[in-house]
Amino acid sequence: MSQPVADIGLIGLAVMGQNLILNMNDKGFVVCAFNRTVEKVPHFLEHEAKGTNVVGATSIEEFVSKLKRPRKIILLVQAGKAVDAFIEKLVPLLEQGDIIIDGGNSHYPDSIRRCKDLEAKGLLFVGSGVSGGEEGARYGPSLMPGGSAAAWDSIKEIFQATAAQVQGVPCCDWVGETGSGHYVKMVHNGIEYGDMQLIAEAYDILKRGLGLKEDEIAGIFEKWNTGVLDSFLIEITTNILKFKDDDGEPMITKILDKAGQKGTGKWTAIAALEAGTAVTLIGEAVFARCLSAIKDERGRASKAINGPERKPFEGDKKQFIDDLEQALYASKIISYTQGFMLMRETAKELNWNLNYAGIASMWRGGCIIKSVFLGDITAAYEKNRELESLLFDDFFNKAVHKAQPGWRRVIAQAILWGVPTPAFSTALAFFDGYRSEVLPANMLQAQRDYFGAHTFRVLPGKENDVLQAGKDIHINWTGRGGNVSASTYTV
Amino acid sequence: MSQPVADIGLIGLAVMGQNLILNMNDKGFVVCAFNRTVEKVPHFLEHEAKGTNVVGATSIEEFVSKLKRPRKIILLVQAGKAVDAFIEKLVPLLEQGDIIIDGGNSHYPDSIRRCKDLEAKGLLFVGSGVSGGEEGARYGPSLMPGGSAAAWDSIKEIFQATAAQVQGVPCCDWVGETGSGHYVKMVHNGIEYGDMQLIAEAYDILKRGLGLKEDEIAGIFEKWNTGVLDSFLIEITTNILKFKDDDGEPMITKILDKAGQKGTGKWTAIAALEAGTAVTLIGEAVFARCLSAIKDERGRASKAINGPERKPFEGDKKQFIDDLEQALYASKIISYTQGFMLMRETAKELNWNLNYAGIASMWRGGCIIKSVFLGDITAAYEKNRELESLLFDDFFNKAVHKAQPGWRRVIAQAILWGVPTPAFSTALAFFDGYRSEVLPANMLQAQRDYFGAHTFRVLPGKENDVLQAGKDIHINWTGRGGNVSASTYTV
Repeated sequence: MSQPVADIGLIGLAVMGQNLILNMNDKGFVVCAFNRTVEKVPHFLEHEAKGTNVVGATSIEEFVSKLKRPRKIILLVQAGKAVDAFIEKLVPLLEQGDIIIDGGNSHYPDSIRRCKDLEAKGLLFVGSGVSGGEEGARYGPSLMPGGSAAAWDSIKEIFQATAAQVQGVPCCDWVGETGSGHYVKMVHNGIEYGDMQLIAEAYDILKRGLGLKEDEIAGIFEKWNTGVLDSFLIEITTNILKFKDDDGEPMITKILDKAGQKGTGKWTAIAALEAGTAVTLIGEAVFARCLSAIKDERGRASKAINGPERKPFEGDKKQFIDDLEQALYASKIISYTQGFMLMRETAKELNWNLNYAGIASMWRGGCIIKSVFLGDITAAYEKNRELESLLFDDFFNKAVHKAQPGWRRVIAQAILWGVPTPAFSTALAFFDGYRSEVLPANMLQAQRDYFGAHTFRVLPGKENDVLQAGKDIHINWTGRGGNVSASTYTV
Repeated sequence: MSQPVADIGLIGLAVMGQNLILNMNDKGFVVCAFNRTVEKVPHFLEHEAKGTNVVGATSIEEFVSKLKRPRKIILLVQAGKAVDAFIEKLVPLLEQGDIIIDGGNSHYPDSIRRCKDLEAKGLLFVGSGVSGGEEGARYGPSLMPGGSAAAWDSIKEIFQATAAQVQGVPCCDWVGETGSGHYVKMVHNGIEYGDMQLIAEAYDILKRGLGLKEDEIAGIFEKWNTGVLDSFLIEITTNILKFKDDDGEPMITKILDKAGQKGTGKWTAIAALEAGTAVTLIGEAVFARCLSAIKDERGRASKAINGPERKPFEGDKKQFIDDLEQALYASKIISYTQGFMLMRETAKELNWNLNYAGIASMWRGGCIIKSVFLGDITAAYEKNRELESLLFDDFFNKAVHKAQPGWRRVIAQAILWGVPTPAFSTALAFFDGYRSEVLPANMLQAQRDYFGAHTFRVLPGKENDVLQAGKDIHINWTGRGGNVSASTYTV
């Protein structure tokens, strides 16, 4: 067998894997490459990795033998069975303290399970979110590792050197226990769905609402990218809008409007439903993709269903565009508020100790949602580690307050135009609900007690002999039903 | 052992079980009652069931021996382990062709599994949705049985006699295969969440928006109940709003605004996400309950966050209230459109043959969502069994078109007031998205291809040498990335 020459190994030579290897090589680490279809290894060494220090292996035994101890192995293979299959192959070849790192888009319950299983075998497991797509992997991704805490010391140097750097701070830190790395990555992806949907809605309002052309819209996004919205996604949106096909037409106008998904947005929405946290914006963003997918049905519907009568826009265009910037900004604040609420709730349930400032900081660079905005979130959590929600932070509180009038005007206008704004609208509905001391959920409770004897509680301040604080109360609303309440609906 | 005297047996003497027994007894069937805590059986016979033909058993063996063959046993116990525990106890006591009916709120995947397991043992299984709460169970519920088709002949008479009747038609028919009975019940419950949320939002708009008192609002709902919104939920809302506490104050104003849930709304939203169907209104209704649950946090937020400046309403109040009726009606049409889309999609996936007209008809009476409206849905699907969505039906198409201007005005006004309307807003966003031949999802696809090489497809009519129809296309947007596309992101 070979000499252990490599600092780290990576399995999976698709685009992300190749780029991450080249990135680690650039940072001075010797990486050993492996791939299930082994022919890919020499091809990679002779092409993309030519002239680098990258080494390869053509069997998994050779691969393991080339790694310095404790062995550090990154899996960048398809989430699911492929991860378990490689872990199974690796385990008999590894020794106490060796580290398996899953860098794929694994679902966090799988990471919780794998961490437990591998620790029981004396091995260490890290589930690491890797974000940034092919560009990020190549030039500095956001890395979100969590799992066996004992692994952090061994991988910290490589991970932090490989990650993107923002003002000298690496976009990588230890996230927390068991599956928390992949959990945080999942929420990141959900937030990414939300950010993208918000941009798409703004584009739609400018195009179908104001009737602007792609070049004009590009200019607006370009300007926005110098303000509070300064971010990777606004930057690439500008570039996309400017990108012309050979015939001079904007490429964007030739792209089919059916959005695909890889499932992590859906996972976030489901996790939110399971946790009972109102992460409405991500939910709407996922459903917006579902609606986009039934393009043929929409085509038929567009012919069968009339929209509102269109009247030309008579307002101040410049003011409206500024309002739209504020609407996007405020909606984004709500989306991140919801995302952090979800992490907080889950951490509470699973006894994780998450560092929210650190998480925002890891997302500041390298990944798809990287933005100046995330620096403000980092600052908010650094100022107050126990911050209940972003909306209680002075900076964001003022920002939303300032954005509020324009935000409302934009949605009201879009509604009259008939341009759909599911994400903008749900953000505002959440905002107005969140700042409501009393919501009409008393009506839901009354209805549930009326038809199903589900009981209710008394509003503080309204207690009396019948309506006692802390008691499940059932009223005989109709005078007909019995006094058996549904809470006894067990055998 | 005893003589087989009972037409059917029922296990589980909580409120639903007791009432269903008394209902079946009223219809001339002899029912045998059993309960895990057996002391409940004699108590029930001597009190609620006194003077009826109901018989009881104090052991499960005695219970089974009292049933005529093929034995028909309804379980009305808590969904989950209790159902499996009773099935396990019953199986050794039953014979070929005997029927176990689960009438609880079971999750449909459990019913799919139980149906398969019991059929393999020569027994028959029916998973039946039972809706209507305690009132429905007592005087005629909506029953949605699905599972082993061979069971239908044996239970049809009892089920259809026990169910509610609307214009001579029983609110019970055979739903379809394996878990379809509980699936349809789940969607029913999701729709119920949506209907309730819409009513709560209308109440909130009238109270916090227009500033009306409960008595005035009751009058509005009472009037609505004579029009297109005529339904059980509008009726009980009227009664709730009129219900006074002993001190003369409306009871509703004393009820805590934290809404509980039993999980079936959440299941529907998750099923929608899994199926990739945009059931946004139910999703928002579930999240609205989640937001209601964090009452303390909302209380703090209400002090920390200012809403919009409130200006007195200067419009025509009567017109606005009519607009609100139309907004509620249109949103409800969208919610049912989404619910039926979900059933259609699931039926396609699981190879179920669902009778949509029959489902709407089963919901016309007996259950929480019973309404005149469901008669119109029945008619739409009777006219066209292959109806793509409710919005393509003439009746609903015209109804939405008529409702549209008022619907838009109401939401725009609520937004300016700062009264949250998550369900109204998402319904309108779906409507505007659904009737959009082109959505801005082309931007999402461009972004995904830009940062992750996820590829896109060409819009029909825009094909050229590079942008070929049916091909996954990747553009080198920046001139830096390689030509490896993410679709090769496998090992």
